[in-house]
Amino acid sequence: MAQADSLEELVPLLKRSHLLGTIGELLGWDEQVNLPPGAAEQRAAQHAVLAETQHAATSDARIGSLLAGLEARPAELDADGTAIVKNARRDYDRATKLPAEFVREKAVQGSRGYHAWARAKAADDFASYAPVLEKNLEFARREAAYLGRGDVAYDYMLDKHDPGLTAAAVDRLFGELKRDLVPLMNAIVASPVAERARAVSGRLRGFPVEAQRVFLREVTERIGFDYMRGRIDVSLHPFCSGTGSDVRMTTRYKEDQPLDALFGSVHEAGHGLYEQGLPAEWLGTARGIHAGMAVHESQSRLWENQVARSRSFWRHFEPRWRELFPAQTAGLTSDDLYLAVNAVEPTLIRVDADEVTYNLHIVLRFEMEKKLFSGELAVRDLPLAWRAASRELLGLEPANDREGVLQDVHWSDGAFGYFPSYCLGNMIAAQLWARVRVLRPGLVEDFARGDFAWLLGWLRENVHAQGRRFSALELVRRVTGEELSPRHLVAYLQERYGGLYL
Amino acid sequence: MAQADSLEELVPLLKRSHLLGTIGELLGWDEQVNLPPGAAEQRAAQHAVLAETQHAATSDARIGSLLAGLEARPAELDADGTAIVKNARRDYDRATKLPAEFVREKAVQGSRGYHAWARAKAADDFASYAPVLEKNLEFARREAAYLGRGDVAYDYMLDKHDPGLTAAAVDRLFGELKRDLVPLMNAIVASPVAERARAVSGRLRGFPVEAQRVFLREVTERIGFDYMRGRIDVSLHPFCSGTGSDVRMTTRYKEDQPLDALFGSVHEAGHGLYEQGLPAEWLGTARGIHAGMAVHESQSRLWENQVARSRSFWRHFEPRWRELFPAQTAGLTSDDLYLAVNAVEPTLIRVDADEVTYNLHIVLRFEMEKKLFSGELAVRDLPLAWRAASRELLGLEPANDREGVLQDVHWSDGAFGYFPSYCLGNMIAAQLWARVRVLRPGLVEDFARGDFAWLLGWLRENVHAQGRRFSALELVRRVTGEELSPRHLVAYLQERYGGLYL
Repeated sequence: MAQADSLEELVPLLKRSHLLGTIGELLGWDEQVNLPPGAAEQRAAQHAVLAETQHAATSDARIGSLLAGLEARPAELDADGTAIVKNARRDYDRATKLPAEFVREKAVQGSRGYHAWARAKAADDFASYAPVLEKNLEFARREAAYLGRGDVAYDYMLDKHDPGLTAAAVDRLFGELKRDLVPLMNAIVASPVAERARAVSGRLRGFPVEAQRVFLREVTERIGFDYMRGRIDVSLHPFCSGTGSDVRMTTRYKEDQPLDALFGSVHEAGHGLYEQGLPAEWLGTARGIHAGMAVHESQSRLWENQVARSRSFWRHFEPRWRELFPAQTAGLTSDDLYLAVNAVEPTLIRVDADEVTYNLHIVLRFEMEKKLFSGELAVRDLPLAWRAASRELLGLEPANDREGVLQDVHWSDGAFGYFPSYCLGNMIAAQLWARVRVLRPGLVEDFARGDFAWLLGWLRENVHAQGRRFSALELVRRVTGEELSPRHLVAYLQERYGGLYL
Repeated sequence: MAQADSLEELVPLLKRSHLLGTIGELLGWDEQVNLPPGAAEQRAAQHAVLAETQHAATSDARIGSLLAGLEARPAELDADGTAIVKNARRDYDRATKLPAEFVREKAVQGSRGYHAWARAKAADDFASYAPVLEKNLEFARREAAYLGRGDVAYDYMLDKHDPGLTAAAVDRLFGELKRDLVPLMNAIVASPVAERARAVSGRLRGFPVEAQRVFLREVTERIGFDYMRGRIDVSLHPFCSGTGSDVRMTTRYKEDQPLDALFGSVHEAGHGLYEQGLPAEWLGTARGIHAGMAVHESQSRLWENQVARSRSFWRHFEPRWRELFPAQTAGLTSDDLYLAVNAVEPTLIRVDADEVTYNLHIVLRFEMEKKLFSGELAVRDLPLAWRAASRELLGLEPANDREGVLQDVHWSDGAFGYFPSYCLGNMIAAQLWARVRVLRPGLVEDFARGDFAWLLGWLRENVHAQGRRFSALELVRRVTGEELSPRHLVAYLQERYGGLYL
């Protein structure tokens, strides 16, 4: 069969599998937004039968033989064909090289692990959780081995979330970042302005939910989220799911923390803009799916931080904000607002962290994961190692493990290698930002006029429309003309926070 | 293989297919409640891939061979086993005896038919719709023939919605009903009270949606709908979907028709109570699915009409209703309210019809369907026949086909044989009602105290818990001790409306 014909037969099979995946995603969305409390078991059964169906579609032997044929004559494929085949191979191997029994056991272990973690966290009892972590590490190593990467298990875990990423690359990037960021953070924290930022944030109280809803809808619509192809709802933990013409974000409202729902929504809208910008006709293939979690996170962070925490953004939106909350904002100056928007305060808890310190939480987790996989660190020594790293990086030591190693859910079901994406996303966002500032010096004036179209257009063309044709590192190199480096992130933080605090 | 072992292997296969069906139902619910306008195409693709998957599960050859084995030695099965096998055979034959090409063609025709109907209705142009109806009739006949019932195609269509039902049985029941109901309706319409009922209904205006929502939530919860295993949302057309622990109803609110959302919700809650009362451990088999559309409709109608339009029901709920709507109900007497709740007025439009006249709309449609299938009536003569029947049954003649034969969507995608369920449901509800009044003479006093537990308990045990073990007619016979007859419906209408109007 001609290579073009094989590709033409392959693509619908990939799309079919992807489509089944989108149904699973909808079940997941519905579970967090709508599910009646008593329906959890029924939903689990629906998830299971759908997962089984999707697995059958993904491991369809016809995909295997088409891939073998396509890979036998790589020279006859163009760049897009090559990318499609490469990504399909990756999915196919994941679907076929893991024995069904292993997949089943791992799913059971994941579910057990989650509950063991929840109990251990509630009771501040790391010892009860340690055997779960040991087991999860063992499963991760076995999984890597089944895929032929047993010797580089942590690389395999990183690659799961970000195709092509390696521990060595992350190590280098994070090492450099740590070196420059810790002193900057320390200087900011020592500044008298930090205290004022806290005080101002504390004064933002009693913002009615309904008006918050109106404001964040206007903001997300203005930056370009297309509500004809998406929606926003409320859930306990904010997230963004779906793709193509049906992208669903969630948020949560707190009357006394009005900036939370706003920045959370802009963050999710950043994810949503990426999904809405993927080439719909190629959904399910490397041309139509996102490039990995780091690039995804770069899109959410760029809109949340570089854009929505900027002075020019607020120059446009502040009047409307005051109009919606006249009583709550009386006596608050524009400088106060800008300070509240950019408050910095080291905390022990990652999910509460600001834009500056957040990265150090990730560096900490990466260092733990790396050492756990290399064997340099034993699970039982994790709490102690965590405390030491926390002191070194954040200047804070957790009083207990609930505020330390037990705070995150990720490892409980074996999701190692995910954390680095968050920080890499920040780096990528900063590097893209540096690039657009050069390309369009008047960008912040656009924002001040409420015009975000140029930025979105540029991201659409250079990032969204690329799908997964390139790895994160390669995409950054192509778009910005240089290798990914933390220096742009540090420079951006220095500029914004240095100017404000130092 | 022992029969018990075969059954044990069969049941999980049936459940798997059913579970895939529940996912499809959720997609359908979401489509009407949540779907972003631009996502229709993506949703259609999801429906298609899921339908294909479910079809593969339902037509699994292993089901066929298990059924053949079980049917070969029927004496070794108990009553439940027999019911499970019978129903599974019905589903299996439907899934396997229709050629894939026919199914595809019919789906395309159904979709085309819907759009042709919508256009024809808008333009009041029956002639453009006639060829679609001809084609739909042809598809129905072919479908019946594939299932070996080409000689009784209309029986086959009825049986699709209500296992075991025949045109002869419906004909007898509807003939009797028509004979007794038309005079009753005429007498009511001629009563001076009818005018007063209209006037009172017209005075119910400006009921805020939020308070309506509170009230109907309280009502549906009080009659027993379990919100831990279900929810209610808003959609353009009210419906109830889902089963087991996840039952989802919808409603719609109109400030000037406050009884619409209420009775609509109680109606859907009646469907929901039935689904919540099916034996969850048997979902997907004859022991765990509803007995057909007529019995389903009997549950919604019984709660909506016999219960929620009764004086004793309002004796309990009226104070709360007045409390929620003090300004809107000032000057309205309890008798006024009761009259508005039971207003009767013949209309040309089925979906606007009251409890008395509704049945005659169904008799009309049944007579048309019966004659279309027998060949007694040609499609081109349908508008004329409809007008004549409308005059005879309702005393009203449509001025155009939009208010006549073009008003309903059902036939546009070939759903013949569905209409009778609505009226049969009313008959069954009335017959069950007559039975419970004998068994529990103090039932209406229960209602006046806001206590609906006895009634729900009785329905749970006698109807819901029975699943599809019996056909509708057999179930009625078992539960009420007599054959289904319209006399209970007529007697009930005579008692309630005769007392009020005559």
